[in-house]
Amino acid sequence: MKGECAICRIVADRDSPFRICDLDMSVVGLNPNQRFRGYTFVTCKKHVTELYHLRLDERLQFCEEMIAVAAALDKVFRPDKINYELLGNRSPHLHWHLIPRCKSDSLWGHPIWTQSLSEKRLAEDEYHEIIGKIRRNLPSSKQ
Amino acid sequence: MKGECAICRIVADRDSPFRICDLDMSVVGLNPNQRFRGYTFVTCKKHVTELYHLRLDERLQFCEEMIAVAAALDKVFRPDKINYELLGNRSPHLHWHLIPRCKSDSLWGHPIWTQSLSEKRLAEDEYHEIIGKIRRNLPSSKQ
Repeated sequence: MKGECAICRIVADRDSPFRICDLDMSVVGLNPNQRFRGYTFVTCKKHVTELYHLRLDERLQFCEEMIAVAAALDKVFRPDKINYELLGNRSPHLHWHLIPRCKSDSLWGHPIWTQSLSEKRLAEDEYHEIIGKIRRNLPSSKQ
Repeated sequence: MKGECAICRIVADRDSPFRICDLDMSVVGLNPNQRFRGYTFVTCKKHVTELYHLRLDERLQFCEEMIAVAAALDKVFRPDKINYELLGNRSPHLHWHLIPRCKSDSLWGHPIWTQSLSEKRLAEDEYHEIIGKIRRNLPSSKQ
């Protein structure tokens, strides 16, 4: 862990209400901004900047965990497409953005970054329900 | 191959001047638009929409090939970060966008989609040089 890294702090924050589960290589967390319903982060537990800086077994595990989460999002939200993005332009600590996309969303056909949309926060019980559904659709988790 | 899929046509076009190499699961090709220098596509040979629709061995191979290409881009271009994106919003056939990012680029700190930039085409010999460099930095290829 690097003290100044915002993503390392998220990894360490086991009490976050948005934490879905811990997997071997990653922490799965719901994006509090649910403008795109089901938008989830899969964050590497190690402070690493690029995928090729992980060992072979680590990077394959990290990718497979991300794909398992995407499959769970598919089951829960039935999106028309999923966007998978690992950017790190502001916080260069490996984390996947998994964004379920629906034909009904206002940016359908385009990346979500093409327009700045207002944040969408949910009621506490809605977060709880979504997080529970995703958790139950993951093959296994450590918590 | 699906006849109406633009990406399937790219996979089949073995004579494209932008084709870098064939790997087991993917075709590697340079984006003709080099506004972001080194921007490369890693495209699945199979017509599949989501990563979890591939078999386990296929999806891990596809991810590993993408990561090997990213490592080659790192060696050739020495970017400050790489963006890895699998979107498919317009062409839902698995293809990774690998985008080397530099602190000197005009959208540094932001996804490349936040602003529409003009295309940048290179001279033929520049494409040839870049493609050769990437090809030589890949661990192995079928051509």
